[in-house]
Amino acid sequence: MRLSRYFPILDWGRRYNRQTLTSDMIAAAIVTIMLVPQSLAYALLAGLPPEMGLYASILPLVAYAVFGTSSALAVGPVAVVSLMSAAAVGRIAAEGSVDYASAAIVLALMSGVMLTLMGLFRFGFIANFLSHPVISGFITGSGIIIATSQIGGLLGVRTEGHTMPDLVLSIGRDIASINGYTVAVGLVALALLLWIRLDLRNWLVRFGMPTGLATIVVRAGPVLVVFLTMAWSALMDLGARGVSLVGAVPQGLPVLSLPGADVAIIQQLALPALIISIVGFVESVSVAQTLAAKRRERIVPNQELIGLGAANIAAAIGGGYPVTGGFARSVVNFDAGAATPAASAFTAAGIAGATLLLTPFLAILPKATLAATIVIAVLTLVDFSILKRAWSYSRADFAAVVITLAGTLLLGVEIGISVGVGASILVFLYRSSQPHVAIVGQVPGTEHFRNINRHQVETVPGVLSIRIDESLYFANARYLEDLVANLVAANPGLSDVVLMCSAVNAIDISALESLEAIEHRLKDAGVCLHLSEVKGPVMDKLAGTDFFRRLSGGVHLSQHQAISCILAGRGAVNLPRT
Amino acid sequence: MRLSRYFPILDWGRRYNRQTLTSDMIAAAIVTIMLVPQSLAYALLAGLPPEMGLYASILPLVAYAVFGTSSALAVGPVAVVSLMSAAAVGRIAAEGSVDYASAAIVLALMSGVMLTLMGLFRFGFIANFLSHPVISGFITGSGIIIATSQIGGLLGVRTEGHTMPDLVLSIGRDIASINGYTVAVGLVALALLLWIRLDLRNWLVRFGMPTGLATIVVRAGPVLVVFLTMAWSALMDLGARGVSLVGAVPQGLPVLSLPGADVAIIQQLALPALIISIVGFVESVSVAQTLAAKRRERIVPNQELIGLGAANIAAAIGGGYPVTGGFARSVVNFDAGAATPAASAFTAAGIAGATLLLTPFLAILPKATLAATIVIAVLTLVDFSILKRAWSYSRADFAAVVITLAGTLLLGVEIGISVGVGASILVFLYRSSQPHVAIVGQVPGTEHFRNINRHQVETVPGVLSIRIDESLYFANARYLEDLVANLVAANPGLSDVVLMCSAVNAIDISALESLEAIEHRLKDAGVCLHLSEVKGPVMDKLAGTDFFRRLSGGVHLSQHQAISCILAGRGAVNLPRT
Repeated sequence: MRLSRYFPILDWGRRYNRQTLTSDMIAAAIVTIMLVPQSLAYALLAGLPPEMGLYASILPLVAYAVFGTSSALAVGPVAVVSLMSAAAVGRIAAEGSVDYASAAIVLALMSGVMLTLMGLFRFGFIANFLSHPVISGFITGSGIIIATSQIGGLLGVRTEGHTMPDLVLSIGRDIASINGYTVAVGLVALALLLWIRLDLRNWLVRFGMPTGLATIVVRAGPVLVVFLTMAWSALMDLGARGVSLVGAVPQGLPVLSLPGADVAIIQQLALPALIISIVGFVESVSVAQTLAAKRRERIVPNQELIGLGAANIAAAIGGGYPVTGGFARSVVNFDAGAATPAASAFTAAGIAGATLLLTPFLAILPKATLAATIVIAVLTLVDFSILKRAWSYSRADFAAVVITLAGTLLLGVEIGISVGVGASILVFLYRSSQPHVAIVGQVPGTEHFRNINRHQVETVPGVLSIRIDESLYFANARYLEDLVANLVAANPGLSDVVLMCSAVNAIDISALESLEAIEHRLKDAGVCLHLSEVKGPVMDKLAGTDFFRRLSGGVHLSQHQAISCILAGRGAVNLPRT
Repeated sequence: MRLSRYFPILDWGRRYNRQTLTSDMIAAAIVTIMLVPQSLAYALLAGLPPEMGLYASILPLVAYAVFGTSSALAVGPVAVVSLMSAAAVGRIAAEGSVDYASAAIVLALMSGVMLTLMGLFRFGFIANFLSHPVISGFITGSGIIIATSQIGGLLGVRTEGHTMPDLVLSIGRDIASINGYTVAVGLVALALLLWIRLDLRNWLVRFGMPTGLATIVVRAGPVLVVFLTMAWSALMDLGARGVSLVGAVPQGLPVLSLPGADVAIIQQLALPALIISIVGFVESVSVAQTLAAKRRERIVPNQELIGLGAANIAAAIGGGYPVTGGFARSVVNFDAGAATPAASAFTAAGIAGATLLLTPFLAILPKATLAATIVIAVLTLVDFSILKRAWSYSRADFAAVVITLAGTLLLGVEIGISVGVGASILVFLYRSSQPHVAIVGQVPGTEHFRNINRHQVETVPGVLSIRIDESLYFANARYLEDLVANLVAANPGLSDVVLMCSAVNAIDISALESLEAIEHRLKDAGVCLHLSEVKGPVMDKLAGTDFFRRLSGGVHLSQHQAISCILAGRGAVNLPRT
């Protein structure tokens, strides 16, 4: 039982039969066709030789099949992680150098080890600190940067950098070397890909093709564009006319090996590897959860970390670069009926076959085709609707989107997402340091107490009931002291103050000292301090303290009982029990 | 009116009379006597020439008198800030060099500007992020480091570094050059100072001296020790016997000037200056608040920032180094009857006079005397009682103390306090990311609902009432989704789920999306989702959302009404209205 927790394959492998085999094989075939051009293109985006994209789509898929929990997730190179890898490795070596490629492999290994450790130590929760606004802003920003970086490939112009200012400046600097043939290939590829994505399916169906087959043909579309432009390149000798081609690619499958690296490189890559790991995990797990929910399956986030970790270690061993679960390919895998993670393993076999068959021909493929593939793929990432939704719901969430988006565009992916996370945490802390506070009174006819400014309520003269809408901790302890002091000063003639603690989920030692100070000052002023609706876990802690023993008033189960008790002490009749 | 907000002197100056003048003059005389040896000693601790300690006790006091709001606070060089200044400046220049001294002056200017800006922009709240455990751990750690750093001065051995390992290693390395005369002076000074502090007052009173006069004599004790060891030094020519003396000090008052610095130094000092500003402010404001509370006065934290900012800018102009309000001297000032900030200005005049009179004689003062003064002064900082209190109250608070203490001792003051603040924020975030959750039922005979595991309560079959004890935000949004899914899976046959939101103080857009997902899944499973006790500010936001419009159940004023409503919908009788 324990073993299958870490090796989910032992679980679903036992239930494997001919039917799931057939489903998985069909799904694998479709995903393979889709993955080949994407793998080539994303390697280009990462500044790596195209075969590394293929390598990153073989072993990692097998590793995920063994350790992963999602039946539909398809791992491999993805756009955002490719961009982040390029930004990280670009600081260490020049693009195109041997050091650059080997640093990318080290990055995959480090990310794999980090993900595995995070999984083993159940650190999956840290992904929760990427809020929806931050993820949305980051993905949209990354999509814009990626699309912009491919303008160079479409025009035959050199682009440099991983931020918008750098990219735009570098395009401007080299705009004179624009190449007409490259532009032609790029625009034709772009137009074809767009047409395939938007219209081809309806068109095929209208001409009588069954819907299922039409869908598969559409998925194979990018491969057709690759073959078409390869043919164009060969027929018109585009290489001689100044069009950038992929060039000679080593034939065969990768040699398995573990990368070595010196300490300085590992230090420089540590932070980027961590950020890539977390971003890759968040992207992957949200895809996996969305698809699992559709089939009422469950995925195990901490085991997903191990699955992705194994995939990245496998990527490093097999000469690839950082991988994660991709949205588009996983949806295709799911729609095509992948029943178990075995579909991934079959896809790996498919890619391995394609690698053996394709590499001889890749030399004549224009890079503009791959640039067009990338632009079409990342268009789905760019989504400004979150701006509108966040604006109408909360200015703080809107600010988080804008800060992350602007940070990513102007300062790059790593700083962008870090600034976004930092800003959203600061906003949360700032708010909780200045909590909402309500003076409450009894809603007539009930035992319920609400804000006197929002509801028609009844209050008792001489008794001030304060509801503090936040856990009490160091950041708001002093605020609480000032607040009570000011409220008491503004309400002369008080005999009792009741702190209604229904929203106080914790009291730390700083806040405890503030409560002691409040109690002390109220006692000096002849005012009795009561607490009401203190929760169990808070009560457990307070029970052993001096504050609790010395408390001049009492601790009451409910606000209603607190008021009844104070009135009873005054010799007045009880509150009407409604 | 507005002007006196920024210049409190306009306020208290109008009420100034002969009586307050007398009180202030007496307090100033006593504080002056206490401040002279401390100023010399703390300058030595900061690695600066002794006259800079005196300079830092003149103009800053005048500036604080104009801008400060506390009648008792005495600003000047203090132990912890001196240590922090040494750590910051020591990275830029060698101790004893001209660059070192001028960097300290720049540090004072930068800290002054930062404090003033924080005051003008009302940023005083950031001091709240230093929790009690962090402050306690930091002050105790700093006290231990300071005391250890003075062992060298007491033995005539060189000490280097601002962390315990560095200090202990440097003492060990140079232990051979220990000097018997220095040890003699150091031990005698130490013994005398201890005796003065612990016994002298009782002794004088027993010999018939009035208590008030005895207290003043005790306060003057350190000055007597200074004179005594100066005489010893002169009579026995200690300088020729290898005892480190203060040496020639420029005579007269400082020349006023504004320091200049290049950008590189300003960049290097920016973070230390910020940390020094915040630590200094927290130390100062807590002293000021404690003393103000005793007289039922109020201090204005944001104006205190401006007062300390002005004091530090004045320190830079007058050739001093970073200053803040000191605890011991402020208590003395308070006890001696200081009635207004004018006492500070008179103290400044006293120190200026002492500077003119003393500087010719300081050359022969053994540094061991000053080391002994520092050791005695910082003993009060070291306080381990917080460890016990924190341990018995909360492991998280205990961990914050230990992390800050260990960080300060092992990694230095700046990293120590940063690690402490970071750790306490992380603990807070981690806890709020995995909130306490209770299944609730009705307390019999009331309309009050509590945890079914802690109270004897009544529940309604088919209805699950969940109270989430935390604001819902990005860090716990996914946790909430999992939680509700698991609870619903564990309770088959549910018809209604009620989320009791009495402890939900905010819902951000990430949590809103999780609520939508929960609602959607529950609807698919034929379960109705209700909310109860949603607070006003949260309701304001939810009211405009799709989630709210589509909610299958209702939003109920109280948990009791939610249950009544569900039962009414079933055609059952209402809950008994207790």
